[in-house]
Amino acid sequence: MSVAIIGVSTTKFGELWGTSPRALAREAVFGAMKDARIAPKEIQALFVGNMLSGILGGQEHLGAFFSEELGLRVPAFRIEGACASGGLALHSAVGSILSGQHETVVVLGIEKMTDHKPEDVAAALMAAGSQEERSSGATFPGLYAFLARAHMEAFGTTVQDLAVVAVKNHFHASLNTNAQFRNTITKEQVLASSKIADPLRLLDCSPVSDGAAALIITSNRRQATGNRRSVTIAASAVATDTLGLAQRESLLELKATKKSSKEAYRQAGVDPGDIDVAEVHDCFTIAEILAIEDLGFAGKGKAAAELERGEYTLNKAKKLVVNPSGGLKGCGHPVGATGVKQVVELVEQLRMDAGDRQVIGVRVGLAHNVGGSGATAVVHILKRA
Amino acid sequence: MSVAIIGVSTTKFGELWGTSPRALAREAVFGAMKDARIAPKEIQALFVGNMLSGILGGQEHLGAFFSEELGLRVPAFRIEGACASGGLALHSAVGSILSGQHETVVVLGIEKMTDHKPEDVAAALMAAGSQEERSSGATFPGLYAFLARAHMEAFGTTVQDLAVVAVKNHFHASLNTNAQFRNTITKEQVLASSKIADPLRLLDCSPVSDGAAALIITSNRRQATGNRRSVTIAASAVATDTLGLAQRESLLELKATKKSSKEAYRQAGVDPGDIDVAEVHDCFTIAEILAIEDLGFAGKGKAAAELERGEYTLNKAKKLVVNPSGGLKGCGHPVGATGVKQVVELVEQLRMDAGDRQVIGVRVGLAHNVGGSGATAVVHILKRA
Repeated sequence: MSVAIIGVSTTKFGELWGTSPRALAREAVFGAMKDARIAPKEIQALFVGNMLSGILGGQEHLGAFFSEELGLRVPAFRIEGACASGGLALHSAVGSILSGQHETVVVLGIEKMTDHKPEDVAAALMAAGSQEERSSGATFPGLYAFLARAHMEAFGTTVQDLAVVAVKNHFHASLNTNAQFRNTITKEQVLASSKIADPLRLLDCSPVSDGAAALIITSNRRQATGNRRSVTIAASAVATDTLGLAQRESLLELKATKKSSKEAYRQAGVDPGDIDVAEVHDCFTIAEILAIEDLGFAGKGKAAAELERGEYTLNKAKKLVVNPSGGLKGCGHPVGATGVKQVVELVEQLRMDAGDRQVIGVRVGLAHNVGGSGATAVVHILKRA
Repeated sequence: MSVAIIGVSTTKFGELWGTSPRALAREAVFGAMKDARIAPKEIQALFVGNMLSGILGGQEHLGAFFSEELGLRVPAFRIEGACASGGLALHSAVGSILSGQHETVVVLGIEKMTDHKPEDVAAALMAAGSQEERSSGATFPGLYAFLARAHMEAFGTTVQDLAVVAVKNHFHASLNTNAQFRNTITKEQVLASSKIADPLRLLDCSPVSDGAAALIITSNRRQATGNRRSVTIAASAVATDTLGLAQRESLLELKATKKSSKEAYRQAGVDPGDIDVAEVHDCFTIAEILAIEDLGFAGKGKAAAELERGEYTLNKAKKLVVNPSGGLKGCGHPVGATGVKQVVELVEQLRMDAGDRQVIGVRVGLAHNVGGSGATAVVHILKRA
C-alpha cells in the first residue's frame, strides 16, 4: 500500500493581522479539498501541526477545535514538536493510513504569531529549547549563532557565505505570490543589516509569520490514480537528538537530520544525488548550509562554495534547487505550518505547476523540517506517481 | 498483526511537590521497561501525552525533551488533545505499529500541575474549551454542572446519585497504593462539601494532580508471546464533537463517547455486555454517569439507580466494575497521564495482578478517556492474550 498526496493548499504567509486562525485553517483545508476534488465527507481524520497556540493564544485541544470549525467531526489529533510540528503531523497522518486506521485524511499546519508582542513570541519559541538554554537567557538566533561560529572555525565559512543563502531565498520568494517577502536583496544589504546574534544579522533570520497549509493524503487507489496530479509519499522518517546544544557530540552537523534522511533515502530507495528539488529548514542562513551538508547534497564544509557559484539556485543549479518556495527565510515561518508548506511546494513542483518557480525535470523531491536547534528532524521524500 | 501491551507502570498520583517531570517520566518509563523485561535499545519510538507543559511550564517539544531525558534518542512525538492526550498518544502509538513504522514503542502520559497557582491551573485547563466558553468565564466544573443539571431535569437524577459515584471511587482508591486519595468518604460528606458549581460540590470533582504512567506496546510476536503477562489491544478508536456545549445537539450524552465506543466494539467484536471492567473518565461525578450510559453499560437515565444498588462497585457488581483504580476522582487526574493510567489499571486487572482491587474473572476491559467537556473521546478495548 502506498500513500498519495491528492490535494494541497497554502495561504499567503506573512503578517496577517486581519485573518483569524479559523479563517486560515478554512482557507488551507477547503483549498486542499477543492484541489483534490473531494467532499468533506470523504475526510476520515484530521492531523493538526501547531506549536504555540497554547502559550500565545490560550487555546489547546486544536484537533477538536479545527475539526469543529471545518465541519469535519472526525478523529482529530494535534501533534507538537516545536518547529517540526507540521512535518510530524504529516508523518503521523501517513502512519494512520498505513495502519489501516484511516484511508483519506487531512493534514493542517497552522500558526498565528504576529498578533503578539515580539518578546512574548521569542520567549514562547524558547519552549522548544532545553531548560538550561531557557534559564540562561538563550534565544534561537543565539543558539544558531553558536552553530554558525563553529562552522566558520572548522571550515572557514564566512558571513558572506551566510548572506548568499538569504539572497538566494529572497530571489526564490520574489517569484512566490504566497511568500512573506517578495523583495530581492543583495549580499551587501544582508551584511549591512542589524546584528541579531553575532555572526547572524537580521537578514540571516527567518521572520515571525502567520499562515496555514494543508494536504489531503490517501491510500485510496481510485482517488489517487483518478487524480493525475497525485504525488507519492516515498518516505517519511523522524529522528531526535538532544534538546540542548551543550549535550551534542558535534556542533558541525545536526545529527537528527543525518539520521532521518538516511532512513528516508533507504525507504525511498534513492540517494541524495537523485533529489531534484528540496525544501529545507532554513530558519537561519547557517541552518540551510548545515542542511545541504547533512542531507548529503554537499560534502561537509563544501556547501558554502557550491551555494556561492549558484548551485541550489533556480535556473542555475546543476544538481538540485533548494528552497524554491523561498524557504523559511523568504516565504516566512509560521512554525506549525512550515513543515506542511514545504510539502505543498514539492507537490506543486512535481506536478510541474510551480509557475515562475518551476524547477525543470523534477521527479523526486525532499522536505526537511527541524524542531528547535535540531532536537527533532523530519524528512519526507516525494515522487511523481 | 496485533498489538500487545507487554509492560506497564504508573507513578503515585498526587501532590508530588518534590518530584520533577523528568523524575516522573523516568520512574514510569523505566518501570514499564522493567515490567516488560526489555532494554532501552529495543524501544523504537516515544509517544508523549501531555496537555499543559507549554502553558504552565514554558516547555514544549516534549517528544525530544523526554527522548533525551530517557536516553532513548528515537523518533518522538507529543500528542495533545486536552485531558484525552494520554488516550490519543496510545492511539497514535498503535497506529505507528500497525503501519509498520515501528515494532516496539513506549507511550508516556505525564502532567505536573500542583506546582502552580490554582487559578493559573484553572485558566490553563480552559485551553481545552471553546473560545466562547473561555471568554465568558466558564470553568470545567461549571460546564459539567450544566450537564448534571440537564441530566437531573431529564431523568430525575439527584445530588445523592452524584455522590454515590464519589463514594464508590474513593472506596476503590482506598485499595490503590498509587491513588491520590486513600480515604473512604460517605454520601453525607459529599453532600456537605463546598459547592463548586451547583449542583457539583468539591467531592464531585476530580483533583488537580501530578503523575505519570507508561506502556510498552509491540507487534513483536516473540516479545508478546514470550511474555505470559501480555495483553492484547483489541480496539482503539477516537471521535470528536463540538468543543463548546452550546453547539451540541443534546446535553444528555457525550456523542463522542457513543461514536468512539461503537467503533471500538466493532473493532473488538464485542458488545457492552462483554466488558468485565472499565476505566471511565469521571472528571466529575456526572461524567461517570454519562459514561456508563453512553458506553452502553446502562440505558439512558438508568445508570444512577444501578450505581445506587452497587452495580459497578468492586465485590458487588454483577455486570462490571467501573473505575477500580479509583478513577480520576479517587486516583487523581494528572491530565496527560490519565488516559495511560487507565490502561495500566486494565492491564493489571487482566493479568489478575490488581491485588485488593482485583475484579474476579476479568477477560475484557475498556478504557474511556475524554478531552474537554466531550469534544474528544478515546476508547480502547483490551483482552487477555
